[in-house]
Amino acid sequence: VILEAARGQFASAGYDAVSIRAVARAAGVDAALVHHYFEGKSELFAAVLDVPVHPREVVDGILAGPVSGVGERLAGFFFQVWDGPAGRPRIAALLAAAVTHEDAARMLREFVAREIFGRVTAALGTPDAELRAGLAAAQMVGIAMLRYVVHLEPVASAEPAELIAWLGPTLQRYLVP
Amino acid sequence: VILEAARGQFASAGYDAVSIRAVARAAGVDAALVHHYFEGKSELFAAVLDVPVHPREVVDGILAGPVSGVGERLAGFFFQVWDGPAGRPRIAALLAAAVTHEDAARMLREFVAREIFGRVTAALGTPDAELRAGLAAAQMVGIAMLRYVVHLEPVASAEPAELIAWLGPTLQRYLVP
Repeated sequence: VILEAARGQFASAGYDAVSIRAVARAAGVDAALVHHYFEGKSELFAAVLDVPVHPREVVDGILAGPVSGVGERLAGFFFQVWDGPAGRPRIAALLAAAVTHEDAARMLREFVAREIFGRVTAALGTPDAELRAGLAAAQMVGIAMLRYVVHLEPVASAEPAELIAWLGPTLQRYLVP
Repeated sequence: VILEAARGQFASAGYDAVSIRAVARAAGVDAALVHHYFEGKSELFAAVLDVPVHPREVVDGILAGPVSGVGERLAGFFFQVWDGPAGRPRIAALLAAAVTHEDAARMLREFVAREIFGRVTAALGTPDAELRAGLAAAQMVGIAMLRYVVHLEPVASAEPAELIAWLGPTLQRYLVP
C-alpha cells in the first residue's frame, strides 16, 4: 500500500514535491509507519523503482577509500547491483519504462541525478557538478543499454573487471575535480 | 518497395546474411536498380534505419585530419546528425524500437558496431577494437538517452560544444591506440 501510494506521488508530483507525510496520507497510514519501513525519501524512491540497494549505502561505499578510486568503485557498484540474475531484468525494465513513459523517465532522471551521481559530486565539491554527473550517468546508462538490452558484443559478455578497468578512469575524469 | 524489402531482409536474416541481390529479388527489381539508389549495403542499411547520413562519409570525416582529434570529430558528427529538429525524433524512435523490439536492437547494434565505430577502430588499427568501440558507443548511446529521451538536465540543454569538449577525450581514449 505504501509503495503504491509512493509510486503515484512520485509519478504525479515529481521527486522534489513528495514528502513522506504526503505518501503516508495517500496510503492512509501514519508517517511513522512509512519511516519504520523506509529510512527516508531516497530509500522509498529506490523501492518504488525496484532498485535493489540503498542509495545512501552505495554512495557511502563509493566515497569510502582514496579519492583516486572513486571512478573504479562507482563502476564496481554498478555491476554489483545490476549484473546478477535479479538485477538484469530490473534494469532492462527500468530502461524500457524510461523510453516509453514520461513519468518513468522523470523518476529515472531524478534518481540517477540526485541520489547517486549528485551525492558523489556534492561530497567531492566538483565544479559543474550537474553536467559532469550527467556525463557519468550517460556512460553508465549506455553500458546498461548495450549490455542488458541491446546485447552488443563484446560489451554484453565481457567480465565486469575488464569493463571496470576501462570505465573507472572515464567516471573519475567526469566526477572528481 | 526496395526499402520495405530491405527492412524485412535485415530484420529476419541479420546484416551479414543480406545481399543487395537478395534485397532486389525480394523487392522484385533488378539489383542494378538497388545500386542506382544506394551506394552499397551500408547505405541501404542506414536508409532502413532512417539515419540521415551516409556512414562512409561520416567515417571519412572522422578519419580526416590529425589522429589526436578523432574523438572530438566523432562527438561533433554525432550532434551534427542528431541534434537538429529532424534528427531528434529519429534517434528517439531508434532507441525506443531498440528497447522494445529484438529485431531493431539487432539492427541498431550491427549499425553502431560495424558501420561507425568498427570502421574507425579498423582504420586506426586499435587493439581490442570491438570492446573499445562498444565502450565508445555506450557513451554516445547514453548521451542520446539522457539528452533526447529522458531529458536529464543540464545534459539535455547543454551546448553541443560544451558536451563535445567533455566527450572528445573519452572517445579518444577508447578508440585511439
